[in-house]
Amino acid sequence: MNLYAVIMAGGIGSRFWPESRRARPKQFLRVLGEDTLIQKTVNRLESLIPPDRCFVVTHADYVDQTREQLPNIPKDNILAEPVGRNTAPCILYAAIKLYSQDPEAVMVVLPADHLVQQVDRFHDTLRVAAEKAVEEDTLVTIGITPTHPATGYGYIQFDGTSDHEGNGALKPHRVRTFAEKPDIETAERFLDSGDFLWNSGMFIWRADSIRHAIEKHMPDTAAAFTELESAAGTDDEEAAVHSAYASCPSLSIDYGVMERADNVFVVPGSFGWSDVGDWRAVYDLSPKDEHGNALSGNVIVHDSSRCLVESDKRLIALVGIHDAVVVETEDAILICHRDSAQQVKNIVEYLSAHQLNEYV
Amino acid sequence: MNLYAVIMAGGIGSRFWPESRRARPKQFLRVLGEDTLIQKTVNRLESLIPPDRCFVVTHADYVDQTREQLPNIPKDNILAEPVGRNTAPCILYAAIKLYSQDPEAVMVVLPADHLVQQVDRFHDTLRVAAEKAVEEDTLVTIGITPTHPATGYGYIQFDGTSDHEGNGALKPHRVRTFAEKPDIETAERFLDSGDFLWNSGMFIWRADSIRHAIEKHMPDTAAAFTELESAAGTDDEEAAVHSAYASCPSLSIDYGVMERADNVFVVPGSFGWSDVGDWRAVYDLSPKDEHGNALSGNVIVHDSSRCLVESDKRLIALVGIHDAVVVETEDAILICHRDSAQQVKNIVEYLSAHQLNEYV
Repeated sequence: MNLYAVIMAGGIGSRFWPESRRARPKQFLRVLGEDTLIQKTVNRLESLIPPDRCFVVTHADYVDQTREQLPNIPKDNILAEPVGRNTAPCILYAAIKLYSQDPEAVMVVLPADHLVQQVDRFHDTLRVAAEKAVEEDTLVTIGITPTHPATGYGYIQFDGTSDHEGNGALKPHRVRTFAEKPDIETAERFLDSGDFLWNSGMFIWRADSIRHAIEKHMPDTAAAFTELESAAGTDDEEAAVHSAYASCPSLSIDYGVMERADNVFVVPGSFGWSDVGDWRAVYDLSPKDEHGNALSGNVIVHDSSRCLVESDKRLIALVGIHDAVVVETEDAILICHRDSAQQVKNIVEYLSAHQLNEYV
Repeated sequence: MNLYAVIMAGGIGSRFWPESRRARPKQFLRVLGEDTLIQKTVNRLESLIPPDRCFVVTHADYVDQTREQLPNIPKDNILAEPVGRNTAPCILYAAIKLYSQDPEAVMVVLPADHLVQQVDRFHDTLRVAAEKAVEEDTLVTIGITPTHPATGYGYIQFDGTSDHEGNGALKPHRVRTFAEKPDIETAERFLDSGDFLWNSGMFIWRADSIRHAIEKHMPDTAAAFTELESAAGTDDEEAAVHSAYASCPSLSIDYGVMERADNVFVVPGSFGWSDVGDWRAVYDLSPKDEHGNALSGNVIVHDSSRCLVESDKRLIALVGIHDAVVVETEDAILICHRDSAQQVKNIVEYLSAHQLNEYV
């Protein structure tokens, strides 16, 4: 099977401020461990998809960082978007590029900034998905078997409940519907039902399948990319890309295709997945001491517990502090309640609104 | 009346870490407002005792800082202790020095790092105390009319209760006893009794009165300073001071004299006094916004309240944080619960114990 990875790395996530900045977004951060999230994303594919079959789509501003962090990926595999237009144009650009090189290409589309703890099970899941995806005009996504009634994710409902276990056996299930992020009562109902999975944003399909689907469900987007179909791989590629992104609308593949197509399948995945959505998630995923503290760098704690503290250079001392996140960088310090981690983006919004661009 | 101020500025208070360091203790800090605490101490005496009648006793290491911060005080009025020996030697050194210049000298002994909000009432209190103190061999102290059952101060009980108001009229009262820092129940009893005041560590007496008292109650200390009596003001003064401090014991004037003498009087004071004992006290004394936050420097808060935040250079962002103290300096950051401010000294102890001297 002609399997390729397409890693979407255009995000400018603001929930990891002050470490993440416009010039250095989340996927390029060492959030957990020595490797950055995008390095982990490539590394965990290794035995399934070698680096020369990995493609990265990112903003033009991040191309240099991407090359630096991923020296094993051929330079031509890093696709530069002149402007972010959500996931649909990103995926179509990669699909056209891949199809021009290999009409049999099967794309595994992955966000650059997620975490997977059980790599073998992840590979098993992708293999099952890819076997389904070789079928013509079939779109496959990975749904994460929910572990709790999360309100921060969209959900995918599939046809027919579990054969052997809750939330579906490891095989493709036809998708019944995509659901928006629910309130807590709805999330609990989803969890109890056994036929809802978390929407992970991972997709597997043939390059030509997704091209056909976009032609059908997103004709404006498809039209904007027509020129690129012949220009891909030639000297005219860059100009065609600029022209496509200048005229195409900004839309997600979920909204543009997945929620409208009828040949969509989901494979349930259970491989220690996290989208590492905020500092709270980093706390949850970090190893902790006997007081529940996850400390890195030059940190002293006294009578403090359940804190995530990341010191870059300076000494940080905590006294009588519980359930806090403290992140120190060269020019800024965040002190946040663990349960308020989602609100860190408000700080970035404030900084932007007040033209404090040096901190954004 | 020949009134002089003797400002005790030898402390190395560790409760204001990370701002206070061994090389820059509390009295030299801008803890509240533009002036440092020692500058405020000298300034508030102004109309009562001019700078040329102010003496400062401090550790030799702090003489340069003292001169820098108090340029109006004659250089010879800054007395250098070769080593800290608590308050009794400090006061005797100043008493001998003053007596050698003016045998009628009346000393107003004040800590360098306290705060007074109502200066006029402070002066009135000192005047009443000084009028009593001109009497031979009479020792006078200022007792603060308590506003709450504090457990962090020693107490002074006086003879006879109030004439007009709770905790004594503005006149000298004979001291019955000095009490150690009480537990909360005892403190409540003290407060209810009407005849207990907080021990403020401010004293008023003639230079010869305190010399006599030390001779009587602290003969070892008096003996150590015999040589200085003739050397004060001569080229031999420094050698005599070194010799005195090398042999005298380390004792407080409270323990050495006040608790033993029988001619001790207290004048009740009510002038917005604080010993600014820790960051909590700074919070209490600071102006606050509508969320109870006292912010200075480059600080952004979101959904946070009742915090004291002092940014020196870096941006500090708070999200969902309540009742915290955050103090940022060049090389260290303290994050402390407001109610744990007393425990900041544990951090300094830890740093000392682990030879992290760059931070102490």
